[in-house]
Amino acid sequence: MTTVAPAYDLSASDLATRIASRTCTPTEAVSSALLRIDELEDRVHAWAFVDRETALAQAEVLTSEAANGDLRGPLHGVPVGIKDVFHVQAMPTVANSKTMDPSAAYGDSAVAAALRAAGAIILGKCETVEFAGMGMPPPTRNPWNLEHTAGGSSSGSGAAVGARMVPVAIGTQTGGSNLRPAAYNGIAGFKPSHGAISREGLLPVSWTLDHPGIIARTAVDLSLVFDAIARARPVSPLRTGPWRIGLVREFFLERSEQPVVESVERAVSLMRDGGATVAEAHLPPIFAAQQAIHRLIMSPEMVTYHATRLAEQEDRMTPRHVQSVKAFSLLPVTYYIQALRARRILKEQLALLFDQFDILVMPTTPAPAPKGLDSTGDASLLSPWSLVGFPAATVPCGLSNGLPLGLQLVGKPGSDTTVLAAAEFAESVLGLLDLPF
Amino acid sequence: MTTVAPAYDLSASDLATRIASRTCTPTEAVSSALLRIDELEDRVHAWAFVDRETALAQAEVLTSEAANGDLRGPLHGVPVGIKDVFHVQAMPTVANSKTMDPSAAYGDSAVAAALRAAGAIILGKCETVEFAGMGMPPPTRNPWNLEHTAGGSSSGSGAAVGARMVPVAIGTQTGGSNLRPAAYNGIAGFKPSHGAISREGLLPVSWTLDHPGIIARTAVDLSLVFDAIARARPVSPLRTGPWRIGLVREFFLERSEQPVVESVERAVSLMRDGGATVAEAHLPPIFAAQQAIHRLIMSPEMVTYHATRLAEQEDRMTPRHVQSVKAFSLLPVTYYIQALRARRILKEQLALLFDQFDILVMPTTPAPAPKGLDSTGDASLLSPWSLVGFPAATVPCGLSNGLPLGLQLVGKPGSDTTVLAAAEFAESVLGLLDLPF
Repeated sequence: MTTVAPAYDLSASDLATRIASRTCTPTEAVSSALLRIDELEDRVHAWAFVDRETALAQAEVLTSEAANGDLRGPLHGVPVGIKDVFHVQAMPTVANSKTMDPSAAYGDSAVAAALRAAGAIILGKCETVEFAGMGMPPPTRNPWNLEHTAGGSSSGSGAAVGARMVPVAIGTQTGGSNLRPAAYNGIAGFKPSHGAISREGLLPVSWTLDHPGIIARTAVDLSLVFDAIARARPVSPLRTGPWRIGLVREFFLERSEQPVVESVERAVSLMRDGGATVAEAHLPPIFAAQQAIHRLIMSPEMVTYHATRLAEQEDRMTPRHVQSVKAFSLLPVTYYIQALRARRILKEQLALLFDQFDILVMPTTPAPAPKGLDSTGDASLLSPWSLVGFPAATVPCGLSNGLPLGLQLVGKPGSDTTVLAAAEFAESVLGLLDLPF
Repeated sequence: MTTVAPAYDLSASDLATRIASRTCTPTEAVSSALLRIDELEDRVHAWAFVDRETALAQAEVLTSEAANGDLRGPLHGVPVGIKDVFHVQAMPTVANSKTMDPSAAYGDSAVAAALRAAGAIILGKCETVEFAGMGMPPPTRNPWNLEHTAGGSSSGSGAAVGARMVPVAIGTQTGGSNLRPAAYNGIAGFKPSHGAISREGLLPVSWTLDHPGIIARTAVDLSLVFDAIARARPVSPLRTGPWRIGLVREFFLERSEQPVVESVERAVSLMRDGGATVAEAHLPPIFAAQQAIHRLIMSPEMVTYHATRLAEQEDRMTPRHVQSVKAFSLLPVTYYIQALRARRILKEQLALLFDQFDILVMPTTPAPAPKGLDSTGDASLLSPWSLVGFPAATVPCGLSNGLPLGLQLVGKPGSDTTVLAAAEFAESVLGLLDLPF
């Protein structure tokens, strides 16, 4: 007798394949996910809202359909979570803020609608840092070590997938909010090119920096979900010959702890063994200004979006975060416009690196998830790629003190499928992490 | 014996056709243009710089080529002028500013290079308002009445074409700077969709509002030149059935003098006789904020671009204009970002009008060119379309006190060729103005 893995332990691709071949049903998949949530949620706190009854009712319908060989799409019957900054029909949007009305009714965001159309079953809303960046972290804990943060701001999306409650969850990234929780939880994450996934029905942090993103068990799952929810089905690039990989030591390895440096060196060495060519990529001088440029764009846009809320409900917002952002409402406009211009130059300069390389690689974070829940960790290796809108993925590349590390892979704008293919290649040579729980 | 019109009196299309059929040579075309400039320039002041020798030398080369049946492109041998805010190889860029160094050397802007590649001969640089909007008008006079402005900021481009010194000149529009001088000088003008013509090598006024534009003798010429210099050759839309024309009375006719209203009513009536359907188009409520939105975007971008110049050379800039813009350097950033958001909503709302209409029509200016050279006239009917980046054309539609009036035709974003076709249709029913000089 063969041991069959429980449904909750399967990747989205494996689960979808089993459902399509009728060796598993949507009802079994959803029930298994809900049982896993029951088992771990008290400790992990990944969810802001779960609607069991609706999910099970939908699963029954999709189970009947699957029994008739009638599949809605590539995610038929796959349970998913969505960060609580996207609107989902018949679910509250709270964004971890006391200013939001949990009884307000919304329609589906574009991402939720696309997931449903592909056959996914939305179990609920995943925990987030207050307004995805402007406030208090949620109570979410890292399933690898409950004393540590799960990262953020897509904290619940990372922890829910990391704890195998769902094979896929949707997050967002304005600085490092999607790839950081993916890396901290030992799983794969993808932030596509800016604009590649619709932001309709998403509460903004910063219009020109916000990216919906995907967190999943495997790199293959990232592609599966991206194909299902991307605005336009991206054209697959024709790539021949070995992967040309640029390792970025400047800034990225320089800022990283020794175990992180070693894990990336090992990953690059395995990719070379797997047929890739590897050389060092050098950053343009203007890269030195990227943190300032990011801050001078994000904070003004954030304070503009929250202007009415800050004027009328500041007492219901977390003071230390309000203060750090509010001052930007008085910033002279020329700084912001200069930052927009500088971003454009930075983008042009960084794009030139892709004449030499298909993919740049570097650590996802300079250290594993820090202890405590007050901070969601360091986003400094991620925010440059949010700033310029280049596609970036993370796959697990080792452990440090029993906590996962991630390898970040970055491509030029629009090369989303190249980055996803590179992530699959990296995953194939690095292997998945053995989850200890 | 047939009387042959002098080369200077021909449209670009007619001139190019004659050159191609060897009934006129590039040398004759350039010589005729230079003679016309000699005859009128002392009174009109359309040119900041003319390079006769180079133009004649180039004309000789193109004459030989044409004699061998070898044409560089659709503008082979056609003399043109370029507003003195575009860089042109071996010509100064002064922009009517004392802060610019006339001895500085530049390469060709993208527009200049595209014109050359199409076979055009660049005679020189046309007069402009200081930095195309931030300062002093040039000495350019309206050839229809030398007491009156030629409009601006593309003053010289409008006057040079209006006075038949060149059949085509390039201008720019950030508010109303391209279509206004075209209308005031009794000729045709086109401001394409934002981004349709490259801004490379153009001194900016305001990055998100600047449009290179075309001024020409006829609407057919506008198409000829647009096809030659547009970034990508635009796809011709398939249009069947009669033109669906929306007349915009709100704001546009309301602000206009009675002779302007009558000329537009007459034009619309002639288009209806020509087969078009005409109905009134109603503006969305947010249109009421368009002037404020335009100002809150243009001035901050302008003051950012000129920040170093204002800090170091303010004494060489025109005081009244410096003061009106400089205060914006202290504008809190949230106003600008709110204006960018409002523009986006305005754009979406205005685009909905094109579900009902192919083209919106309205006056180009609320009155003909005003007397005196201190003001370049009223741009209020033009700046809304610069703000949202929709393509707009003007064709002559009558006279008031012996000065030309223009009919403005506006299309949805990307429908450049539709707007140009509509301008040709309007011109065919309205006829060209008889130039009295």
